[in-house]
Amino acid sequence: MSTVRTLVAVDAGGTSTRAVLLDEHGTVLGRGTAGPGNPISAPDEAVGNLVSAIADAAGDTGLGLVAITLAGAATLGGQVPGLDGALADAGIEAPVLIEPDLLSAWFSATTLTDGVVLVAGTGAVAAVVADGQLGTLVDGCGWLLGDDGSGTWIGRRVVHDVLASLDGRGPNTVLTPALLDPLPAGEGSDRARIIRHAMSSRPTALAEFARLAFEHADDPVATAILDEAAEHLLHTVRTACGHLTTTGAATVVLAGGIASTVVGDRVAAALTSDGASVMRAVDGTVGAALIGLRHLGVAVDEPLRQRLAGLSPRE
Amino acid sequence: MSTVRTLVAVDAGGTSTRAVLLDEHGTVLGRGTAGPGNPISAPDEAVGNLVSAIADAAGDTGLGLVAITLAGAATLGGQVPGLDGALADAGIEAPVLIEPDLLSAWFSATTLTDGVVLVAGTGAVAAVVADGQLGTLVDGCGWLLGDDGSGTWIGRRVVHDVLASLDGRGPNTVLTPALLDPLPAGEGSDRARIIRHAMSSRPTALAEFARLAFEHADDPVATAILDEAAEHLLHTVRTACGHLTTTGAATVVLAGGIASTVVGDRVAAALTSDGASVMRAVDGTVGAALIGLRHLGVAVDEPLRQRLAGLSPRE
Repeated sequence: MSTVRTLVAVDAGGTSTRAVLLDEHGTVLGRGTAGPGNPISAPDEAVGNLVSAIADAAGDTGLGLVAITLAGAATLGGQVPGLDGALADAGIEAPVLIEPDLLSAWFSATTLTDGVVLVAGTGAVAAVVADGQLGTLVDGCGWLLGDDGSGTWIGRRVVHDVLASLDGRGPNTVLTPALLDPLPAGEGSDRARIIRHAMSSRPTALAEFARLAFEHADDPVATAILDEAAEHLLHTVRTACGHLTTTGAATVVLAGGIASTVVGDRVAAALTSDGASVMRAVDGTVGAALIGLRHLGVAVDEPLRQRLAGLSPRE
Repeated sequence: MSTVRTLVAVDAGGTSTRAVLLDEHGTVLGRGTAGPGNPISAPDEAVGNLVSAIADAAGDTGLGLVAITLAGAATLGGQVPGLDGALADAGIEAPVLIEPDLLSAWFSATTLTDGVVLVAGTGAVAAVVADGQLGTLVDGCGWLLGDDGSGTWIGRRVVHDVLASLDGRGPNTVLTPALLDPLPAGEGSDRARIIRHAMSSRPTALAEFARLAFEHADDPVATAILDEAAEHLLHTVRTACGHLTTTGAATVVLAGGIASTVVGDRVAAALTSDGASVMRAVDGTVGAALIGLRHLGVAVDEPLRQRLAGLSPRE
């Protein structure tokens, strides 16, 4: 039964869902996309978007597996409520595997099965990967209590330091006009406009202001923020490396929007100095595909991963 | 018309409202209390509680003024929507004055009219007082963007540092069992229980955990948190002192729950070393009474303030 060896791999994100149909050789046979697919951040639309992306990718191909990776998989207990029924209604009958996005980030970069993965984007979390499974988490405590060095952390520090500059607690900084100029006009002082704007959005929307620190990285206030962010992320990764039970040089995979900036470059350089082997995550569907193929008992190897990642020509 | 020289002074707080009826000599003639009276934090019940406390204090005495002090008076533009009508419905016809709680904190401690006041409780804000009016604010940017060194800031750091201890980013601390033991039992790891508990409350509810740092002030992690809180508050006050246009030794009034702890003591000691004259706020109704008497043209002096504050025997 060839259909049993065909799967859809899904990267279900907070803003979009991307699905890929592939066979056991890693040959891509179809693709689908839809809107937000994370049932924690988008509870009303996630199931519909997941089914839509999966159905678009699969067409009428019989499937051996649907492998979905998303943030918060552990919180969900490896289940997306209502998904099995919705898939059946769409004529898709296949086992569904739900795994953490941390694991798809890891397997997008390597077919090794032991090391540490850091996802530094809106949030920041590191995890031990042991025998291909997710182990101890370090940070990832959320915007209120942690995620130190994340986009939300950097953005909040930008706004904090601009407010401190305005009332005299901190030095002048080019971040102030950079933050104020695009703000909607409004009544009250600059200080009041900034506080009103920031408090009227979700706290994680502060991550949008992280961009200002990168755009003005030469400004001393911005430099201090980015230096401290890199120190936090490095400390988080090193702590996770301390939980490894393997010996020898650690493999570290860096993923997420902040990891692909100068902050990530600094973290990578320091880890390389530590003796670690640092790799960069690519597309999350590549990791979801590797996880799915492993689950089906396929012996995944580096040429297969690179073919999926588009790093070498397709067959 | 003797009634014109009689007023009700109201301290309208987030948890209770206290009103005092007094004459122009500062003699207390009646009192009233009610629940939350701040229309920003308790929009549904503030007007009712204000009227209730004022009516209880005034009885059927004719009033020359109702002087209310509350947090966020400037945000409200010096108005509590619906209050005038509700007072009229209760048979109370008098001009209403709304002033910031920062100003009642100041006037609860002194009849001087120039200096700096710090309120460090759930939040943290300093302000210049110039000619008896509130001037430049320093910090007070709220739990998300500032209030550095406040109860919410300390409480958040307690939870942050406990989570860091649990995943290996930080040292062991007695704050961990102190935080965990009273938490409701629940599924998942200690880490998950803490995050779930903290994220299910208002962010300012984190201030309740500040208590743990004070109770275990000898613990190195708690010590570091309290040291940093004191540094933040001191920096906030010193910045406000830098905005003073008066010369000579600054007068600084310290108010709020955190100001009355060892953290406040450290701030006071450092300010005294700076050459400042440090005073402590007492009951907010005392400050509201002084503000009201000043508004009525009464020459307020220190004996009158002390009589109101109960520091010397009533006449």
